[in-house]
Amino acid sequence: MSEVEAKKTQESLQDRLAQVVDLLQRQRIVESLAHRQEGQHNELVENLVHRQNLVELQRKLDDLHSADVAYILEALPLEERLTVWQLVKAERDGDILLEVSDSVRETLLADMDDHEILAAAKEMDADELADLASELPRDVVHELMETLDAQQRERVRSALSYEDEQVGALMDFEMVTIREDVSLEVVLRYLRRLKELPGHTDKLFVVDSDGILKGVLPIKRLLVNDPDKQVADIMASDTVSFHPDEDGYEAAQAFERYDLISAPVVDKHGKLIGRLTIDVMVDLIREESESEALRTAGLREEEDIFASVWRSLRNRWSWLAINLITAFMASRVIGLFEGSIEKLVALAALMPIVAGIGGNSGNQTITMIVRAMALDQVSHGNGNTKRLMRKELGVALVNGVVWGGVIGVVAYLLYGSWSLGVVMTAAMTLNLLLAAFMGVSIPMALARFGRDPAMGASVMITAVTDSGGFFIFLGLATVFLM
Amino acid sequence: MSEVEAKKTQESLQDRLAQVVDLLQRQRIVESLAHRQEGQHNELVENLVHRQNLVELQRKLDDLHSADVAYILEALPLEERLTVWQLVKAERDGDILLEVSDSVRETLLADMDDHEILAAAKEMDADELADLASELPRDVVHELMETLDAQQRERVRSALSYEDEQVGALMDFEMVTIREDVSLEVVLRYLRRLKELPGHTDKLFVVDSDGILKGVLPIKRLLVNDPDKQVADIMASDTVSFHPDEDGYEAAQAFERYDLISAPVVDKHGKLIGRLTIDVMVDLIREESESEALRTAGLREEEDIFASVWRSLRNRWSWLAINLITAFMASRVIGLFEGSIEKLVALAALMPIVAGIGGNSGNQTITMIVRAMALDQVSHGNGNTKRLMRKELGVALVNGVVWGGVIGVVAYLLYGSWSLGVVMTAAMTLNLLLAAFMGVSIPMALARFGRDPAMGASVMITAVTDSGGFFIFLGLATVFLM
Repeated sequence: MSEVEAKKTQESLQDRLAQVVDLLQRQRIVESLAHRQEGQHNELVENLVHRQNLVELQRKLDDLHSADVAYILEALPLEERLTVWQLVKAERDGDILLEVSDSVRETLLADMDDHEILAAAKEMDADELADLASELPRDVVHELMETLDAQQRERVRSALSYEDEQVGALMDFEMVTIREDVSLEVVLRYLRRLKELPGHTDKLFVVDSDGILKGVLPIKRLLVNDPDKQVADIMASDTVSFHPDEDGYEAAQAFERYDLISAPVVDKHGKLIGRLTIDVMVDLIREESESEALRTAGLREEEDIFASVWRSLRNRWSWLAINLITAFMASRVIGLFEGSIEKLVALAALMPIVAGIGGNSGNQTITMIVRAMALDQVSHGNGNTKRLMRKELGVALVNGVVWGGVIGVVAYLLYGSWSLGVVMTAAMTLNLLLAAFMGVSIPMALARFGRDPAMGASVMITAVTDSGGFFIFLGLATVFLM
Repeated sequence: MSEVEAKKTQESLQDRLAQVVDLLQRQRIVESLAHRQEGQHNELVENLVHRQNLVELQRKLDDLHSADVAYILEALPLEERLTVWQLVKAERDGDILLEVSDSVRETLLADMDDHEILAAAKEMDADELADLASELPRDVVHELMETLDAQQRERVRSALSYEDEQVGALMDFEMVTIREDVSLEVVLRYLRRLKELPGHTDKLFVVDSDGILKGVLPIKRLLVNDPDKQVADIMASDTVSFHPDEDGYEAAQAFERYDLISAPVVDKHGKLIGRLTIDVMVDLIREESESEALRTAGLREEEDIFASVWRSLRNRWSWLAINLITAFMASRVIGLFEGSIEKLVALAALMPIVAGIGGNSGNQTITMIVRAMALDQVSHGNGNTKRLMRKELGVALVNGVVWGGVIGVVAYLLYGSWSLGVVMTAAMTLNLLLAAFMGVSIPMALARFGRDPAMGASVMITAVTDSGGFFIFLGLATVFLM
């Protein structure tokens, strides 16, 4: 894919970025000088300096791996980003577009005309094309499809027919296939004729004349065995393979578990149709963990750090709106007890403690359970749920009695009422028990309804422990202290 | 490492777990029967059924990949876990111990005597041994070191001299080295003599007689080039290499960025001392993202889902204690304004909305910035900070005016006081601006002091927006409404 070999000298990525930024800054100073001295007829000189800077910058960029250029583009504000983008050699456009994040890619594509996009896309493989197709202008995609041969077109269509996270959309088509009835010597000669092997080729795929996968020949075995041996004798026939409609995340887990580098993808008849490679799986693992972190904080999507205020607002609004609603509900619960608060204003000061600690504790439970569910260690099928619930309730009870006791004593010392202290301790304990119960139940319930157990679990638990905490504390206070 | 090839048939991991659980349950029923019918002299029959079940279970386990056995051990409660553990063949103990999580490993090691541990450890490579050394009993480690040859001992010592996340602790020693002045034919013959290649061998390391790394020969090139060619002519001399004291996470980023499978580790003289492989990097990426999720929720370490209540408490206490302190501070801020609340009890109901939305918004800002910092897109060096701050303050201002306005109108409708509504809107806006300012400043400050920008950032922002939100809202109310 990338024509420039990965290099790593003493200079770090930050250093490289700093150099580019430096060149861009010099550029800007020259431009602002030119602006100020307009009409002073030394434009020629500035133009020379200007060009010299650009040439130096271009040389730097040419030396960098596509992934590093992508990194620099991501770290630059829009204007500088486009300056750099225009300096990148046209034949590298495709590689770099594939490396940058969705939001940055959008800004780059917006800067290219159809002709440039078409040229970049022509360099791509079918699977890469399919990845980008949804973001390219319709005419460009149409024109592109025309230029492809029948097999390539079929592959793009097939990749497009799967969801983003399905194996069918993640696989590539660069598999090297061999027959089982030949000797290793023949295989070695065949490989030499290929001139180049696809990246991540750690095994060859053994197929019959119908394209049915018979096994795989690990390169390791090819290298250490006698060239006179037959493929059939040393191939592994019982191998990990995937179906195109499988979940990519599960495939990634299998790659992790079995330390795979590549694996065949077969259709339901056992015919080899593609392969998965570890680099795609690593990207998926990384994206998964990132989108989890983003979701936890209520960001809908990865945000280009130089996104406009307007884009950022759109990305964050829905979450704030949901939280506003739950906060409003909690506020109404407090509203129910305004009479009690008026009589004993200490309640107003103490109530956020009960609600807050409940929320923290509930989120701990949820984090632990979502993680265990992601690793398939818990599900309502295997009978671990009850045991877990007992443990979480036990933890909550101890925490409630101990921390609730501490804060109860503090409340007594502050307000001189031992009954207020007791109510505080009781409310803390009950709210922690509620948090533990809901912390186990919410992800389980989400999973039972086929949802992602992490999705929204944190908002829900906070809503419950806030409203619940206020209700329990103010309710107990109203009953016992009024 | 693992002697059983990875298999993946139609049955999923959950199915396999279910089968084991089922066998264990039958086991338990037999045991409880034996218990009830004690003295009825049919012990022989039960013993037979008992043994038959165990044999079936053992057969199942023998068929499974070590990683799958590890998965099953993780998903079982302690008692069942140990039953299964005792059925695992002794020679696989080492592999499986390396696969399970730290907390589960502890329970397994506790069940083994020194002799068994020693036997398991003897199967391990130097780097694996070093990974486990800290968890093994001292005598065992001592005895183990005695049995190793000088080179192995040196390797274990060297690996132990690095921090867990340093390249030196992550590398293995299974590199295949060749000289540059031989032909590919010679290399191919040499590999055949080795009988077996280490896992993840996608390149051979070219060294001179002093062991200095001269370049790498990708297996891909070895396979497609004419066997008469010299290694020196086709090797890549300008390759990505690492130093043992480098940060493992940065190495993992390089693996991701450049799609590496293995890479050489060299000392400061350029001498080859080990190699990094993608499987270790993937584990590191996964662990990093998991520990981030755990830290966000305030769990000190990964928690075995069947950990005792006591262990869970220890894991979660420190965080709850910190939150209790910040909640108490916020409570004292409210305490300052008890007079105002007594006069206008609506303040008590409205104040959690101001604090809560500030916390949510601040956490969104922090998540975005921590992510950008992890990708090296922002640091105080490259001048992006001001721009970011402006953007975040802009987003906060719009959110404050819009959502604050909405909630201000609601407050007016509920309590019939337009001045209360205006105070609410103003407080929301100011608290969101505070959240944005601190959301950018906290991770930057942490990074400047050499700390992990994510560590504790969420607690801090919540502390600021809670106490700050209460202070701003109640303060404004006291000044303008009393």
